[in-house]
Amino acid sequence: MGSAPVPAGVPPSGLSSDVLLVIVPFPRDEKWTAHLQARHPGLQVRWVTRQFMSPPAPLPEETLDGVSLLLTVWPPPMEPLPKVRFVQLVSAGADRWITHELYQKPDVIFCTMNGVHAPQIAEWVIGSWLMMRHHFLDYAEQQKREKFARLNDVTAEDSPGLRMGVLGYGAIGRQCARLAQALGMEVYAYTRSEKSTPESRKDDSYCVPGTGDPDGVIPARWFHGESREAVNEFLAQDLDILVLSLPLTESTEYILGREQFEILSKRKTFVSNIARGKHIDSDALLDALREGKIRGAALDVTDPEPLPDNHPLFTAPNVFITPHVSWQTPQLFARIQAVVEKNLENLSEGKPLINVINRQHHY
Amino acid sequence: MGSAPVPAGVPPSGLSSDVLLVIVPFPRDEKWTAHLQARHPGLQVRWVTRQFMSPPAPLPEETLDGVSLLLTVWPPPMEPLPKVRFVQLVSAGADRWITHELYQKPDVIFCTMNGVHAPQIAEWVIGSWLMMRHHFLDYAEQQKREKFARLNDVTAEDSPGLRMGVLGYGAIGRQCARLAQALGMEVYAYTRSEKSTPESRKDDSYCVPGTGDPDGVIPARWFHGESREAVNEFLAQDLDILVLSLPLTESTEYILGREQFEILSKRKTFVSNIARGKHIDSDALLDALREGKIRGAALDVTDPEPLPDNHPLFTAPNVFITPHVSWQTPQLFARIQAVVEKNLENLSEGKPLINVINRQHHY
Ligand SMILES: NC(=O)c1ccc[n+]([C@@H]2O[C@H](COP(=O)([O-])OP(=O)(O)OC[C@H]3O[C@@H](n4cnc5c(N)ncnc54)[C@H](OP(=O)(O)O)[C@@H]3O)[C@@H](O)[C@H]2O)c1
Ligand SMILES: NC(=O)c1ccc[n+]([C@@H]2O[C@H](COP(=O)([O-])OP(=O)(O)OC[C@H]3O[C@@H](n4cnc5c(N)ncnc54)[C@H](OP(=O)(O)O)[C@@H]3O)[C@@H](O)[C@H]2O)c1
Repeated sequence: MGSAPVPAGVPPSGLSSDVLLVIVPFPRDEKWTAHLQARHPGLQVRWVTRQFMSPPAPLPEETLDGVSLLLTVWPPPMEPLPKVRFVQLVSAGADRWITHELYQKPDVIFCTMNGVHAPQIAEWVIGSWLMMRHHFLDYAEQQKREKFARLNDVTAEDSPGLRMGVLGYGAIGRQCARLAQALGMEVYAYTRSEKSTPESRKDDSYCVPGTGDPDGVIPARWFHGESREAVNEFLAQDLDILVLSLPLTESTEYILGREQFEILSKRKTFVSNIARGKHIDSDALLDALREGKIRGAALDVTDPEPLPDNHPLFTAPNVFITPHVSWQTPQLFARIQAVVEKNLENLSEGKPLINVINRQHHY
Repeated sequence: MGSAPVPAGVPPSGLSSDVLLVIVPFPRDEKWTAHLQARHPGLQVRWVTRQFMSPPAPLPEETLDGVSLLLTVWPPPMEPLPKVRFVQLVSAGADRWITHELYQKPDVIFCTMNGVHAPQIAEWVIGSWLMMRHHFLDYAEQQKREKFARLNDVTAEDSPGLRMGVLGYGAIGRQCARLAQALGMEVYAYTRSEKSTPESRKDDSYCVPGTGDPDGVIPARWFHGESREAVNEFLAQDLDILVLSLPLTESTEYILGREQFEILSKRKTFVSNIARGKHIDSDALLDALREGKIRGAALDVTDPEPLPDNHPLFTAPNVFITPHVSWQTPQLFARIQAVVEKNLENLSEGKPLINVINRQHHY
């Protein structure tokens, strides 16, 4: 902690009198701290190691004093910090912040971590899709029995020519699309706002190099809107797989219910949910799986969450469930660092930041 | 059966006096037969339904009489058919044909089914890779216990920035590369012959639309040769995953033995084999897995094959084994039809065929 000495000859950085408070589930990274301070002479960096999932606990006053830049996932449980001018969230959405006083101040810039989770979550989506389509769990069972013989009651189906619908064509959805396209699939995209021009289809949020669809050139067709009618029209497009990769907002809560599973039953669309459990009415999903209305589902998030022990979803047919782990990767902190570096850089140079939150839509 | 009447006004096709004998594991497809005969008036089509794996059995004389075009996987157990001028194999290699009399005749054109297996086999490679990297089998076990809780002893690792080595950059290897590139990986390619020019990097074999790397533009580096030294140099390139997708020939038998696993141990390279079991020395693989020299392996083919019940490979650490099923897909026959149509088309018009076998290398 403490400010780094300003080397002679280096012009004072735009962050020379700033204090950055880092609250992350990683131990203080001395090398990275030194790197930031070398780039931004005078910048103070304070560090609190705290698990993503643990409930917010009070922080000592000396940790908070003078903080102007925040890197955190949870809103700190404290009086609004008078000097804070920039909050870099370590999450993709701001749902936890909506009622926080800092969030009410229009001159505090809020940025998300959009993009840092895209590669691993898209791998989860495509990996679980392929595992289920190729019946790997059945073959793993047979391997346990130490037998080498074809399973005659299963048929592996591949993906060329199939259609993926991406409900929420943001950072995660775009990498799912990239993988689907590589598999030979066609992609239909759905967004909240209309994307009628090449410019509007671009996504300038953080993108891990070599991944995603930052220019928005993959989808064969684009759909948009916030009404149920618009969503239903999208769901009726003979989708072979539907990926839920949109933020949880008032208009996306329980966006898939009985009516929607009825629509999906026409094509027996496979449903992959890596966004939030509350997008799906669990009872309607359970019935759709049991009645074979949909081909199957892969769920990294559930409603309720955590899914209680022995919940009927665990044993529903053709469902794969993981406990909200699709975001995990040892690369996560390096990606978070890349976003922070980019934004501190732009902040110090007075340039527009990346991943700036839309205060109307909270993502 | 019987020749289709030649409609008035249609110029006689180059196949008007040909007899095509189809020996495949699918029932006679009347619609497709009619389609071929409409395209090639006068062409006779005979059909024998026979499993891929069943041993060759004699065929009645009237089935063989006058046959000039053959579509088959196994060499038919018969005297050489004097009129045969074109053999369209339903397999990727000609290893089963090498001693057959027809194969000795240089004026009989042999073509393979290269490319029809690429999408599904590449899905098997990437699907098993993602399943293992994301520990889906462990999560599936936990789902069976009807619990929703993170597994603390496993770490899901994603693929951006990793390097895939493709040993045999043909139809299958190219689609593996396409998927790896979409995941954000770098690809190194290995071929038998040198590919020093853009032209030489192209692959003009059949390619399912929207898949593969027909122009050979994905690899960051190219390696080649038939010597052990050349292969060893490739294996030493810090590969995170090595895909075996080369034909079984004298020079590729047991291409991975103790010496090679020693080289791979530097990076603990994951090994995926969908080519032939005899590429790998099973004892050396077993030791490499048990000693943690490699990160893991995915095997659709084994040596011996079938792998005997209770063979130690079944229970080796970090191995996933399936019983030579990666080629399966309900799309298979449609893809085979596409190759046959293309080649009959080109044959009738006197154009060069696709997938023509190299009689020196038998693939
Ligand atoms: N499972 C996990 O561990 C995990 C990890 C990270 C994130 N997530 C979830 O995944 C969500 C998506 O993440 P992301 O980084 O891809 O988000 P993102 O980049 O912000 O993209 C969100 C996309 O959803 C669209 N959208 C917004 N409101 C919508 C609505 N009412 N109807 C339909 N589409 C709507 C947006 O449309 P516009 O383009 O018009 O704005 C945008 O295309 C996050 O909000 C979070 O809930 C889950
Ligand atoms: N598991 C299954 O169900 C299944 C299904 C189909 C095929 N297979 C196996 O997969 C193999 C590959 O299929 P494919 O369709 O991708 O074949 P392909 O298109 O013929 O490509 C073969 C590739 O291997 C290279 N190669 C040949 N000899 C080599 C050597 N001595 N050392 C290194 N590389 C060598 C070739 O190099 P050049 O470019 O220089 O010729 C070419 O790049 C088949 O031969 C078959 O054994 C398995």
